[in-house]
Amino acid sequence: MKDRIRVGLIGFGTVGTGVVRILSKEKDLITRRLGVPLTIAQIADRDITRKRDIAVPPDILTTDPQRLIQNPDIDIILELMGGIEPARDFILNAIYNKKHVVTANKALLAAHGEEIFDAACKENVDVGFEASVGGGIPIIRAIKEGFSGENISAVFGIVNGTSNYILTQMSEKGREFLDVLKEAQTLGYAEADPTLDVSGGDSAHKLAILATLAYGTPVPIEEIYTEGIDHVTPLDITFAETLGYKIKLLAIAKHFDGKIEARVHPTMIPKEEMLAQVNGVFNAIYIIGESVGESLFYGRGAGSMPTGSAVVSDLIDIARNIQNGTNTRVPHLAYLPKTRTRLPICPITAIDSSYYLRFRVGDRPGVLSEISGVLGRHNISIASVIQEGRKGSSSGDGVLLVMMTHQAKEADIQAALSRINQSPFVFEPAVLIRVEEKNNNGLTRNIRT
Amino acid sequence: MKDRIRVGLIGFGTVGTGVVRILSKEKDLITRRLGVPLTIAQIADRDITRKRDIAVPPDILTTDPQRLIQNPDIDIILELMGGIEPARDFILNAIYNKKHVVTANKALLAAHGEEIFDAACKENVDVGFEASVGGGIPIIRAIKEGFSGENISAVFGIVNGTSNYILTQMSEKGREFLDVLKEAQTLGYAEADPTLDVSGGDSAHKLAILATLAYGTPVPIEEIYTEGIDHVTPLDITFAETLGYKIKLLAIAKHFDGKIEARVHPTMIPKEEMLAQVNGVFNAIYIIGESVGESLFYGRGAGSMPTGSAVVSDLIDIARNIQNGTNTRVPHLAYLPKTRTRLPICPITAIDSSYYLRFRVGDRPGVLSEISGVLGRHNISIASVIQEGRKGSSSGDGVLLVMMTHQAKEADIQAALSRINQSPFVFEPAVLIRVEEKNNNGLTRNIRT
Repeated sequence: MKDRIRVGLIGFGTVGTGVVRILSKEKDLITRRLGVPLTIAQIADRDITRKRDIAVPPDILTTDPQRLIQNPDIDIILELMGGIEPARDFILNAIYNKKHVVTANKALLAAHGEEIFDAACKENVDVGFEASVGGGIPIIRAIKEGFSGENISAVFGIVNGTSNYILTQMSEKGREFLDVLKEAQTLGYAEADPTLDVSGGDSAHKLAILATLAYGTPVPIEEIYTEGIDHVTPLDITFAETLGYKIKLLAIAKHFDGKIEARVHPTMIPKEEMLAQVNGVFNAIYIIGESVGESLFYGRGAGSMPTGSAVVSDLIDIARNIQNGTNTRVPHLAYLPKTRTRLPICPITAIDSSYYLRFRVGDRPGVLSEISGVLGRHNISIASVIQEGRKGSSSGDGVLLVMMTHQAKEADIQAALSRINQSPFVFEPAVLIRVEEKNNNGLTRNIRT
Repeated sequence: MKDRIRVGLIGFGTVGTGVVRILSKEKDLITRRLGVPLTIAQIADRDITRKRDIAVPPDILTTDPQRLIQNPDIDIILELMGGIEPARDFILNAIYNKKHVVTANKALLAAHGEEIFDAACKENVDVGFEASVGGGIPIIRAIKEGFSGENISAVFGIVNGTSNYILTQMSEKGREFLDVLKEAQTLGYAEADPTLDVSGGDSAHKLAILATLAYGTPVPIEEIYTEGIDHVTPLDITFAETLGYKIKLLAIAKHFDGKIEARVHPTMIPKEEMLAQVNGVFNAIYIIGESVGESLFYGRGAGSMPTGSAVVSDLIDIARNIQNGTNTRVPHLAYLPKTRTRLPICPITAIDSSYYLRFRVGDRPGVLSEISGVLGRHNISIASVIQEGRKGSSSGDGVLLVMMTHQAKEADIQAALSRINQSPFVFEPAVLIRVEEKNNNGLTRNIRT
């Protein structure tokens, strides 16, 4: 038994300062729970002169991460620098030096998780990554331990706070995407380069992690269909509301009949659904289990202190393993490595969904009949139609035609739209938004139900 | 390392059959996660002839729980019989026989938890109780491990599915309490004796467990102020809706300034709040942490399979401890026994809240002035008033007067109402419902803010 557990922190930025603050503020509480203190022994950052809003002894600061990785007194390396390289290199080095690792780096885990966890397994060290998905929401622990006997049929939700903030503002204020994005950047809710957030890429990284844990299979990031929120318009948000829906950027993974479905895209969900009430920078994730039914986890998806809190819970968990000599007590990726399988990931064309379709068409007889005819010939059945009359605009703009379909095959929808978009009556490519409807077992349906 | 983990089940009822079904259905999945099979070795129940909807080998059934407790092959005793005695006796016996224990028995833990956990600590065995609160929601694990570095300021929510079902039906259909209760009994959502559910007693048991874990202090059940839903009327539900609120039975624990507040009562919450959307037999629990902010956990609060799922997650967790020789790796009650404190629990008169008050008064001049005068003299400030005109009813019934107060002291409210109820203008005792308002840090406010 050690008299204290020593952490080496690489990356003294937003989350890093949160962790340092929590370990200091909650020192007594953590000792009452863990039995020994948990301390930051050394901190590495490229910039060790910048003033942070938390004071640390200057002699624990260094610009050289290798000094932490090689330090025999350090038990756990905490990687909070982000990015792929050199974070990957530092983590692998730490593992080969028999250090346990905690990281919040979803991009790295989504791209190189298999390599990192293979190494950790070989060296019998722990790798905690609760902070990589859902900020302060203990969702990783829930899948790995809370639902350890659950056959999970779906895991889905809102996992990117920036996109959700932007969609919430667009919905509440009727504003355009670019307008809200600019404001979000000024307020610090969006990065200077917001691509990863608004393109859905960050959500896809998180979905890869969640689905890997839920299903015991690798989920390569490049096999996740990913669509961002940059093409969502106030017009479609308004139509969605008229039809009783909200538009949210959802990350969705389902398991059915030995196949996995994994996709990220703007999604219409019934407005009385709990997910539809998740606003601003909050995240919320549903787990649908065969025994447990639907469960939802909601909380702050980002920020210095919430994400710091998730990091601290991982540090305490690993510290308990160190004190008991029982590392890798729970398999890193929920399933024992030798029992993991390689399930096929469906392409987006293989999924079934309901759809919202919006057309801008010439205001003349026969157009509705032509469009619905094409859809019908592709086995797509229409649930409802809104045709908007001309509102004094010149007929050159055309009129808007909105259709909600019953459940259909994505491949059929794509084929039908490609045909419709070629028609001379159609003034611009059709807008498509997938719809998740509620059934008895929660919000999503399975593949091919 | 054992080649399998053997469970002895005492109590083969609703949850017991759920556990047996999950262990059989998810046998492969559990083995892929745990490494060895988890099996039911023996089952004790008073009635071993009744036909259940799951088949078990007849030779593992017994009417004598001692045969399980004394069986050297059994690793974990699973107590699902409920009630205080002989469940307490069986559990203590199992612990003294060095068996680990899993239980869903909230009434027992609320009343005799300290004794049971003392014994478990002495014998170095695990006691899992995830299924005791919130059915399939992994809330116990969240407090003990997910938020292990969190200074929790409040834990509150809907923890009794029967009451929530009844309130949901009353709200949606405008029906009376007794009418809905009778139907719930017919449908199997309420027990033949529903007292514990509708009186708030069951919620208080669960709150005692949650607050004990969150604050590292004993929370004696008799110090929890408890009020049920049996006096909630469709009239007050309608007024609440007019004012923008829903009425839910909440269990609320807060920590402020070294004191604990713990209470169960019907509560008005803003209808746009997520808790207000929790309907039917679902449960939802908020954790407010100083670092993490607000988090919400939502799911099925009862039922054979959801509760069975929580039991199975405990069995797997303890099995992992057995395989690694690391029992009591996490303190039973979240804090190490020697660091637990004894924080004072405030009486209900010491809390601050906002209030909904409804009076039935004589329809004559001066009544509003008299009532608001008494409130004013007790430092209670009124936020809004609804005075309902006579609707053709005879003036003998009086008219209804509804007031929403600003935050006030409960002691002042009680004193004022006791005074007002004596007035000859007042036709029946005033109705009081506490209100939880939203502030920056989530739904509840602290004591004496």
